[in-house]
Amino acid sequence: MARRNDERRAALVDAAIEVLAREGARGLTFRAVDTEAAVPVGTASNYFANRDDLLTQASARVYERLRPDDSEITRRQTGVTDRESYAASMHELVDRVSSFRTGYLALLELRLEATRRPDLRAVLTERVRADLDANVAFHLASGLPGDETTVRLLYLAFNWLIVEQLTLPDVLSEAERHALVNAAVDRLVTP
Amino acid sequence: MARRNDERRAALVDAAIEVLAREGARGLTFRAVDTEAAVPVGTASNYFANRDDLLTQASARVYERLRPDDSEITRRQTGVTDRESYAASMHELVDRVSSFRTGYLALLELRLEATRRPDLRAVLTERVRADLDANVAFHLASGLPGDETTVRLLYLAFNWLIVEQLTLPDVLSEAERHALVNAAVDRLVTP
Repeated sequence: MARRNDERRAALVDAAIEVLAREGARGLTFRAVDTEAAVPVGTASNYFANRDDLLTQASARVYERLRPDDSEITRRQTGVTDRESYAASMHELVDRVSSFRTGYLALLELRLEATRRPDLRAVLTERVRADLDANVAFHLASGLPGDETTVRLLYLAFNWLIVEQLTLPDVLSEAERHALVNAAVDRLVTP
Repeated sequence: MARRNDERRAALVDAAIEVLAREGARGLTFRAVDTEAAVPVGTASNYFANRDDLLTQASARVYERLRPDDSEITRRQTGVTDRESYAASMHELVDRVSSFRTGYLALLELRLEATRRPDLRAVLTERVRADLDANVAFHLASGLPGDETTVRLLYLAFNWLIVEQLTLPDVLSEAERHALVNAAVDRLVTP
């Protein structure tokens, strides 16, 4: 029964992500989540203490679903030693994140909602900082070319590249975006 | 009378920007704009054909208000010749954009709304591309160090730096953000 509840909760949080991406933070109501998840009205309100709880769990779930799978982690830990394979792994990262379109758009909605909700802001701040620190630590431990500043600047550039692709996809062509990932690695990874 | 109408329209569009930043795209109604602008209910609906018209004019107005003033343009055209003064002008740029907090947050709301509204997406795409092209052209004509790729990568990195500062200001400290601007210029401006 506990397991079934966990699955139901995850399905509701996934539904919340879809609602956030499609309707915006303001459109995220328990009722909209019930409808999206195709469950009886009143279900979501049994699973979440309040709207802040739902928003917080949605952000955690996006990060969970954005984590690389084990094969990608192994590849990054063992196969990436030079600039070319580093660029390849960065293409993989950008493609993976941008292919979870609704998740990334939901995160942008949550960031904007965080300007209005101090509790959500605290949760997201901790999450983003932990994620950035983990990326830096992973990079430094791997012996890859580049330093902490490399990781931080790639984080900045690739996040906006994904914003551009997901919100205004015709500003840069696919070829231009591809070239910018290569150029970013090339210039930001100092010897 | 025409002039008074123009002033009234600008005041309504400015009010729309504040509503967008505070309430999100979904909260932007003619009535909310009337309230924000402290004008009689029904005023905004006399000035804009529909909600798309209001959203489009809000995006144009944010870009208009984000334009550097003449003294900054002159400084950039005459005083920026080396890497240090280039970095200084980039700090000025990032500070100017991020100090119009509600305008930048409104643009993010408009980008998310553009995923739902093809007409708004077309207007914003044209605007962002024109802005990016103008920055590249200005850069190349100035004889500054760096190339088109420099300008594009700085555009990416600085936009997300501003998103970070305005949505989750405690992820990076002011000193860290300052250092990242310097490092971005240093690494992306190739000799």
